[in-house]
Amino acid sequence: MTATGTGFTIKWKPSFIIRNDRGVRVRVRFEELTTCLTTLLERRGFNGEDARLSARLFAEASRDGVASHGLNRFEWYLETIDRGEIDPTSHPEPLRKIGSLERWEGRHGPGNLNAWRSMQRAIDLAAKHGIGCVALAHTNHWMRGGTYGWQAANAGFVGMCWTNTIANLPPWGGVECRLGNNPMVIAIPHSEAHVVLDFAQSQFSFGKLSSYRKRGEPLPVAGGFDSTGQLTNDAEAIEESLRPLPIGMWKGAGLALVLDLIAAVLSGGDSTLRISERSTEHDVSQVFVAIRPFSERADDELWSRQLIDATLANLREATPAWEGARIRYPGEGVLEARRDAERNGVEVDGDVWSRISARAGDGDPRT
Amino acid sequence: MTATGTGFTIKWKPSFIIRNDRGVRVRVRFEELTTCLTTLLERRGFNGEDARLSARLFAEASRDGVASHGLNRFEWYLETIDRGEIDPTSHPEPLRKIGSLERWEGRHGPGNLNAWRSMQRAIDLAAKHGIGCVALAHTNHWMRGGTYGWQAANAGFVGMCWTNTIANLPPWGGVECRLGNNPMVIAIPHSEAHVVLDFAQSQFSFGKLSSYRKRGEPLPVAGGFDSTGQLTNDAEAIEESLRPLPIGMWKGAGLALVLDLIAAVLSGGDSTLRISERSTEHDVSQVFVAIRPFSERADDELWSRQLIDATLANLREATPAWEGARIRYPGEGVLEARRDAERNGVEVDGDVWSRISARAGDGDPRT
Repeated sequence: MTATGTGFTIKWKPSFIIRNDRGVRVRVRFEELTTCLTTLLERRGFNGEDARLSARLFAEASRDGVASHGLNRFEWYLETIDRGEIDPTSHPEPLRKIGSLERWEGRHGPGNLNAWRSMQRAIDLAAKHGIGCVALAHTNHWMRGGTYGWQAANAGFVGMCWTNTIANLPPWGGVECRLGNNPMVIAIPHSEAHVVLDFAQSQFSFGKLSSYRKRGEPLPVAGGFDSTGQLTNDAEAIEESLRPLPIGMWKGAGLALVLDLIAAVLSGGDSTLRISERSTEHDVSQVFVAIRPFSERADDELWSRQLIDATLANLREATPAWEGARIRYPGEGVLEARRDAERNGVEVDGDVWSRISARAGDGDPRT
Repeated sequence: MTATGTGFTIKWKPSFIIRNDRGVRVRVRFEELTTCLTTLLERRGFNGEDARLSARLFAEASRDGVASHGLNRFEWYLETIDRGEIDPTSHPEPLRKIGSLERWEGRHGPGNLNAWRSMQRAIDLAAKHGIGCVALAHTNHWMRGGTYGWQAANAGFVGMCWTNTIANLPPWGGVECRLGNNPMVIAIPHSEAHVVLDFAQSQFSFGKLSSYRKRGEPLPVAGGFDSTGQLTNDAEAIEESLRPLPIGMWKGAGLALVLDLIAAVLSGGDSTLRISERSTEHDVSQVFVAIRPFSERADDELWSRQLIDATLANLREATPAWEGARIRYPGEGVLEARRDAERNGVEVDGDVWSRISARAGDGDPRT
């Protein structure tokens, strides 16, 4: 099928094409998305299993409403492979071990595969020892951090993980970016509707700032300092000053620092300082923790489910603080996007999908 | 010695008396402070060892510049004992265990003793298994959270711990307080100058708001919503609206929630929802994690120290963002206060010390 008049050509049949406030959007079946990305990764030298897993994690990010670290980041992923920053044939390997704590060497492998395998190892350790921790050095951007929280929760474990990044956040009281925004993920298993918090230490990512600027909208709350040192809701002013705001001011700056130090110290890898000496972000350090809740007995599991249900219901029933305010728990939006995608296909950016599917189609062994 | 003309009488000899912007202040030797508090706790039924440890933790909080959870909280501590919320003779006991994860029952014991012993147990587990975790139910306010971070770091371990609290923070988008501010502590060992972050999920505690109001000063950044729903720097307006701001808006609210849920689920204890059904805060739930860094070898330890030193130096050398801005790492202020106290005695509130030392002096077996 070829879509005309929309500025792009689609060789792979999308479910349907829509135009909304985010431009031309295409609905694609999840399996179609995964197959397309798998094809491209296999051509880059990933083995079959790795290609399928990495493709699935990208497709799941888009399915779950996190396109910025799903399909929209896929072309960048291919470029970092082509630049040699990601070694598509590399697998992480254990270096040191004390009981249920392990240090792994990421060997510059694909960030999402390394992270997935590290969390899986932490889960295996926790299954045996109650709690397990893997510290991973010399890995690459893990793409959507929430992935590894859902992974732990789906296995029935509490998950905590974080990564350091290149410097992109000033310390509190300082002008230049010398901290990473060091995203952290915390997940609690809860039937199918896990509670999964996925947050960076900056109030808004540069990607979010860019979206607000393009839409010409002010940020809903102050997002950084402008070049004169005033707090501002103007995304463009923050892009110019390069002074985004840490969450909670000095508190988020402190959290970014300690997460960086723990990741580097435990993994034996690089801290944000060292990562930032390079022109692009690679060789980052990460920590994965899984904890096995005491839920062997059916009554434990029931008690935990009721406790979480009651807590979330209580939050939801608070008086709205402003017109249209919706009180949501971390992970709720993901689940809504996922359910919508399961019914209607994954909504993706038309231009991005056009380019990626064309690349896959060009050498698609099925065509 | 009796101090006259300052509105209070001191029976225990202070080093000296000063008056500064915080009112009448007294410098007391650390040992004198500890002895005084120990005496009062022994009279409340604590055994000798418990009384000394609990007293020392209070005295250390004041010594380290955290008087709000040191001497200034001590009278409240005695009151909660007198109300029966804290059982001074109670000791925590293990309930369940999977490898290096344990669930302990706090048995309504003194919060700082329960927390100290839980972190000590997590450290012991980590010494053996690399990582250890203790979840503690039915305990009381741990006073200064940073205590347990310093405890882990002093033993050479990375420490992470958090507690839930009574509801004192609204969810993002909601009016009523339905989350706790759930303080979290993260510590990294570093020679003597450990990096220790101790932060609650509200931008300012109600104690801090009260201090700003009393001094008639605006908050340095917005600290909550006023009763009309506008963000404000006016501490009094936030005390009236009871709508303090979570750090990072929706992010800190999310973090408060997940910390609460993990603490309750792992410990089998109460969540903020349940705790808030009571008129006062007790039976809280806490989590203590210790991680053994891979620092057995001298070169590991040296590498880690240099990495942390270089990172902190790099932050410190950023251009100041405003006049007089000082870029500090988490724990730096504590160390400065401690060094000052070691040279000059612990600076305490004159009125508070007068009352407490008088109570101890009245029945002091040595007088």
